[in-house]
Amino acid sequence: MHNPQLNANGELTHLLSIEGLPRELIHQILDTASSFIEVSDRDVKKVPLLRGKSVFNVFFENSTRTRTTFEIAAKRLSADVINLDVTRSSTAKGETLLDTVDNLIAMHADMFVVRHAASGAPHLITEHLRRLGRNDVHVVNAGDGRHAHPTQGLLDMYTIRHYKKDFSNLVVAVVGDILHSRVARSDINALTTLGAAEVRAVGPKTLLPAAIERMGVRVCHDLREGVRDCDVVIMLRLQNERMNGALLPSAREYFSCYGLTPAILALAKPDAIVMHPGPMNRGVEIDSDVADGPQAVILPQVTFGIAVRMAVLGILAGN
Amino acid sequence: MHNPQLNANGELTHLLSIEGLPRELIHQILDTASSFIEVSDRDVKKVPLLRGKSVFNVFFENSTRTRTTFEIAAKRLSADVINLDVTRSSTAKGETLLDTVDNLIAMHADMFVVRHAASGAPHLITEHLRRLGRNDVHVVNAGDGRHAHPTQGLLDMYTIRHYKKDFSNLVVAVVGDILHSRVARSDINALTTLGAAEVRAVGPKTLLPAAIERMGVRVCHDLREGVRDCDVVIMLRLQNERMNGALLPSAREYFSCYGLTPAILALAKPDAIVMHPGPMNRGVEIDSDVADGPQAVILPQVTFGIAVRMAVLGILAGN
Amino acid sequence: MHNPQLNANGELTHLLSIEGLPRELIHQILDTASSFIEVSDRDVKKVPLLRGKSVFNVFFENSTRTRTTFEIAAKRLSADVINLDVTRSSTAKGETLLDTVDNLIAMHADMFVVRHAASGAPHLITEHLRRLGRNDVHVVNAGDGRHAHPTQGLLDMYTIRHYKKDFSNLVVAVVGDILHSRVARSDINALTTLGAAEVRAVGPKTLLPAAIERMGVRVCHDLREGVRDCDVVIMLRLQNERMNGALLPSAREYFSCYGLTPAILALAKPDAIVMHPGPMNRGVEIDSDVADGPQAVILPQVTFGIAVRMAVLGILAGN
Repeated sequence: MHNPQLNANGELTHLLSIEGLPRELIHQILDTASSFIEVSDRDVKKVPLLRGKSVFNVFFENSTRTRTTFEIAAKRLSADVINLDVTRSSTAKGETLLDTVDNLIAMHADMFVVRHAASGAPHLITEHLRRLGRNDVHVVNAGDGRHAHPTQGLLDMYTIRHYKKDFSNLVVAVVGDILHSRVARSDINALTTLGAAEVRAVGPKTLLPAAIERMGVRVCHDLREGVRDCDVVIMLRLQNERMNGALLPSAREYFSCYGLTPAILALAKPDAIVMHPGPMNRGVEIDSDVADGPQAVILPQVTFGIAVRMAVLGILAGN
Repeated sequence: MHNPQLNANGELTHLLSIEGLPRELIHQILDTASSFIEVSDRDVKKVPLLRGKSVFNVFFENSTRTRTTFEIAAKRLSADVINLDVTRSSTAKGETLLDTVDNLIAMHADMFVVRHAASGAPHLITEHLRRLGRNDVHVVNAGDGRHAHPTQGLLDMYTIRHYKKDFSNLVVAVVGDILHSRVARSDINALTTLGAAEVRAVGPKTLLPAAIERMGVRVCHDLREGVRDCDVVIMLRLQNERMNGALLPSAREYFSCYGLTPAILALAKPDAIVMHPGPMNRGVEIDSDVADGPQAVILPQVTFGIAVRMAVLGILAGN
Repeated sequence: MHNPQLNANGELTHLLSIEGLPRELIHQILDTASSFIEVSDRDVKKVPLLRGKSVFNVFFENSTRTRTTFEIAAKRLSADVINLDVTRSSTAKGETLLDTVDNLIAMHADMFVVRHAASGAPHLITEHLRRLGRNDVHVVNAGDGRHAHPTQGLLDMYTIRHYKKDFSNLVVAVVGDILHSRVARSDINALTTLGAAEVRAVGPKTLLPAAIERMGVRVCHDLREGVRDCDVVIMLRLQNERMNGALLPSAREYFSCYGLTPAILALAKPDAIVMHPGPMNRGVEIDSDVADGPQAVILPQVTFGIAVRMAVLGILAGN
């Protein structure tokens, strides 16, 4: 089957999803990110790799945090960055997604960083670019619906590789609202591809997708069982809006069943690391003592995230 | 009569309206734009012409698309661009337009790109600059009320010249809601100045200004008659808000009378081009088969628009 | 007592408040600002002092004007500027202020320019940085609640020093809503530190803080008495929201008692200057004849404000 993310030489031309990326390509991205880590530590945090390139942050859904990380990554590569808050623009005037994209291509966009509430929107754009024969324009999925958030998945893999070196013996627990989480999907795909020994999907029945086992994970409805002897615990953010509905009784009750406390974390391996994509709901999915504790690598995730996004933009620009 | 757009040497110091611009000056802008076309095609899309200049996008009316094209143009000229969403700022706190402008001048603004719902607002600012004796600060009208949208007019002329070379034998139809359209006004003024053989204003009586003939156009209420044997068809966007009022019965009825379909377009010359300022309402003023067809030059308009805006900013900075 | 703004060598590491800044340090900032004045007059308004640095404008409260001045200052120093409209972001998703800050530090922020409705928020951030041992990250208070607006205070001092040279013989009147004004607090602290002969707090009882005398000012409830023989009159902006409450009867009545008219200004010294932090309410706290008159230095304040902000950012980056 044709992989829309790769060109004829198997090189990355778009980043839509971790699903379908070969293991070597993932490692290549992480290796490149590694070389960018020191750029952000420099006195002059800038390399001229994308000088004169136009990177468009096209956010159909508001996300200041993700937009900011891509903006920083692109600026440190010396690109010209244009932020488009599409919630306020032409789409609101009835223009179609592809008309908006065509217009930006006509302005000589080199790269689209796309966030959309609809699963598949970035894929739709790459399909359109393919039909146009424009392999000089690249798309990065910055989160589409419940589908994927591949740069988050990659930065999570970078973090795990940084602390654990090798994936082959790792037991990783992904905990929380997996049903609505594009991060969970991207992480599970990446961990499977990279050969983690065991991936656990931990959460209440109402927040796990029906056929989650098919992704190759072990399902746990009990947090203690899910965390026991883990090397890595990835906590997911619980969206506030979930708590007003039929899915969950209350934040307090959720915390008592699925909140990560020091006592629960003690069941994991002593050198287990705790990750979270942010923003955290302290006291809902994670206890402050864990969030601020020695096993948390939540802020290093953010630092690595800049390097990973620089790597993705840099690799795409080169291919 | 004094022309507020030109300095004592007849050079452009502000761009407020195409009305009053000599034919040679329009051609000079289009020639300069022509030289900028290749900049956006380069690997490094940047020239240092406006390095260290401060360009303020002062938008009293939201328009992501127009703001973005000016932002790109200015950044490709290496200017520092500051976007001011004035709908959210001091004006809301009761400050007058000219106090806002005075403040930005005091911050050493070099150029104002102004969008305002009120016709004449950019003119008011240039008048103020003249009284202050500040001929080093330049104003570009990015659309004021129903009055003018000169860079759109210029990019339309660029597009026509690109495809048709010479204006003197051209028949051009401007179709749609001319009453509320600053684009129509700018286009008609430009076409007249550049010596087009015939300009037609095509639309229902309710959407044509009362004394439109005085602009030197031929009025057609019938679309077939308006399009017949044309070289250029410029379709205007139909604002959604027009359709809820007394002016128009419905979008569907509008399309059946004034929507450009392949059948209607077949009445024009075989090599006629179709233009649209965007964003398009597919199925309202234009059929998708026309919008995506071989005669449409709607996306080239966008590309030329960047070059034209670079030309205008560059010429103003030089004068 | 430890001063959180200074490092062990007594150098500025954060700018939180003018209170506690030694006189020499204030003069050092003003001297540095003086050297930046000519940068904004250059053809290429840029120096590479902050090249590759990441300056985050973190505005928890909307203020287009202040944000713009810092953005211009940072860009003229060649910094990468990232604007965060935090009213729309993660904080709204329940993240704490310090979690937001931790994330930005993890992105290798060099400088935070912070605006917050709560007094003390910037101080909270510097305290947090101190605990983290991060003396390479700097905070500039761009206005916190009713507490302080130190760069406004410094630019006011720059303005006074520019026109009056020496502070020791000056009589300065601060007029208006001192109770709610962070500008007033910053100005009074600065004037006291710089040794002004007399500082007067002029306004109705309802708009003066209870123990204002303790700041070393002379209280005047009568505008004529307050302005008489002054060298400098600093008018404060009257927030519109004050006029709907119990504090003030109406804008018209306020103007009749505390509005600065030419007749009142005539009571001051003939060479007295009139200042205002903007945006002005013409006809409320200040008459247009005064605002536009020869004694007003309100627009020079804006110009000096850019230089002062460049100086503060530049000094912080160097320490």
